[in-house]
Amino acid sequence: MTKKLVLLRHGQSQWNLDNRFTGWVDVDITEQGAREARAAGELMKAEGFHFDVAHTSVLKRAIRTLYTALDAMDQMWIPVNKTWRLNERHYGALQGLDKAETTAKHGEEQVKVWRRSYDIPPPAMDIKDPGHPANDPRYAKLDAQALPGTESLATTLDRVLPYWHDAIAPQLKAGQTVLVTAHGNSLRALYKYLNNVSPKEILELNIPTGIPLLFELNDDLTVKSHRYLGDPEAAKKAAEAVANQAKAKG
Amino acid sequence: MTKKLVLLRHGQSQWNLDNRFTGWVDVDITEQGAREARAAGELMKAEGFHFDVAHTSVLKRAIRTLYTALDAMDQMWIPVNKTWRLNERHYGALQGLDKAETTAKHGEEQVKVWRRSYDIPPPAMDIKDPGHPANDPRYAKLDAQALPGTESLATTLDRVLPYWHDAIAPQLKAGQTVLVTAHGNSLRALYKYLNNVSPKEILELNIPTGIPLLFELNDDLTVKSHRYLGDPEAAKKAAEAVANQAKAKG
Repeated sequence: MTKKLVLLRHGQSQWNLDNRFTGWVDVDITEQGAREARAAGELMKAEGFHFDVAHTSVLKRAIRTLYTALDAMDQMWIPVNKTWRLNERHYGALQGLDKAETTAKHGEEQVKVWRRSYDIPPPAMDIKDPGHPANDPRYAKLDAQALPGTESLATTLDRVLPYWHDAIAPQLKAGQTVLVTAHGNSLRALYKYLNNVSPKEILELNIPTGIPLLFELNDDLTVKSHRYLGDPEAAKKAAEAVANQAKAKG
Repeated sequence: MTKKLVLLRHGQSQWNLDNRFTGWVDVDITEQGAREARAAGELMKAEGFHFDVAHTSVLKRAIRTLYTALDAMDQMWIPVNKTWRLNERHYGALQGLDKAETTAKHGEEQVKVWRRSYDIPPPAMDIKDPGHPANDPRYAKLDAQALPGTESLATTLDRVLPYWHDAIAPQLKAGQTVLVTAHGNSLRALYKYLNNVSPKEILELNIPTGIPLLFELNDDLTVKSHRYLGDPEAAKKAAEAVANQAKAKG
């Protein structure tokens, strides 16, 4: 029987709007982001989705997006699991900087390298920095050695994947319909894994905020098909907007 | 070391306001209920609470109260578990009725018996009733024989207690600080168990909505002390308001 997995990127956040590198900084969604989340829920409801379980990160922009979408579906009661493994890519010392600040600090060429490479991370945040995850109570129960001070998309995939294998994949295999509400790069990582996309191609993929991406999977969890719910033109435009924003940042 | 447990009754719901027997009907909180939830969160934050985990029912008035309070505390990221075992007492065939309807249908004397007794449940809801939990997707994974068509406070305690023993107590013993956001009667049941209150006395206890009730427990989980957070006069008045409301219903 076809397995169903929906990936949902959080609605617009304040730093999406300000064009800052956010990473693990716990920035909230904007009013527009909340509207996107409600619209995503209404779309999933209209298409008849009944989720057995949902997963999200420990960052409020994803948590609030999930809660808002489930509320719109009248499915607030389903189990929700929050995990650091679905967090956004950690942007290291770039976190909090906007384009002008990043260029001034590191030079245009260097910023291009970080933006265009699959496996070169930005400089790491110092572990003594108050913003380092080792100093954040939400990660206090983890072995500090698991906590990144920076990440590339490659290392993001490395830390997302154990959660896929241990938590999400078994639920799908057991026939559950699963919703994952997360971030541009943690979802990109899952997309790369599921569709077996090359490092070069995955950098061209832009997942729009607030538009549910449905994967239909075979029994062995290979991909049968995937599509954005709702109007394909709207999804395309939203993806382009994300791509342009990334260019503005890089 | 002292163990900390906070019980929080959901904020005012629409049917609290309308004075209807709510039970397992999934009624939402009002604007005032949301304000109560935020105030509860702000109070817990001001008193320096950092929860390791939270538990709630599968009913949205408790879930939304919990989410709202955790948001106010900036602790949206903590694990939350939802369970039917923390649901409100099931009010059987009275669910949805207000005072006048209940009296008209069952007579004043009979209604007094149900209101004043610890272990006499109202007439059961028929299992074919669309409102019976056996017909609600949120309980579809449970053995239907576990699902009540009516409950007394005594049987409510019977189904709350396994969750206390299997989920909440072990976390407290392990040193975690635990928040339970639930309902007038599921919390009354926990209160009765923790404080070893007699059936007669527990019926006199009215837990106010939206005021956190802190239990400090010894290592063996016996009660060291318990108190409402914030202004004791405010808690007292809120409890009286609940008592008067119950009288209006009975």
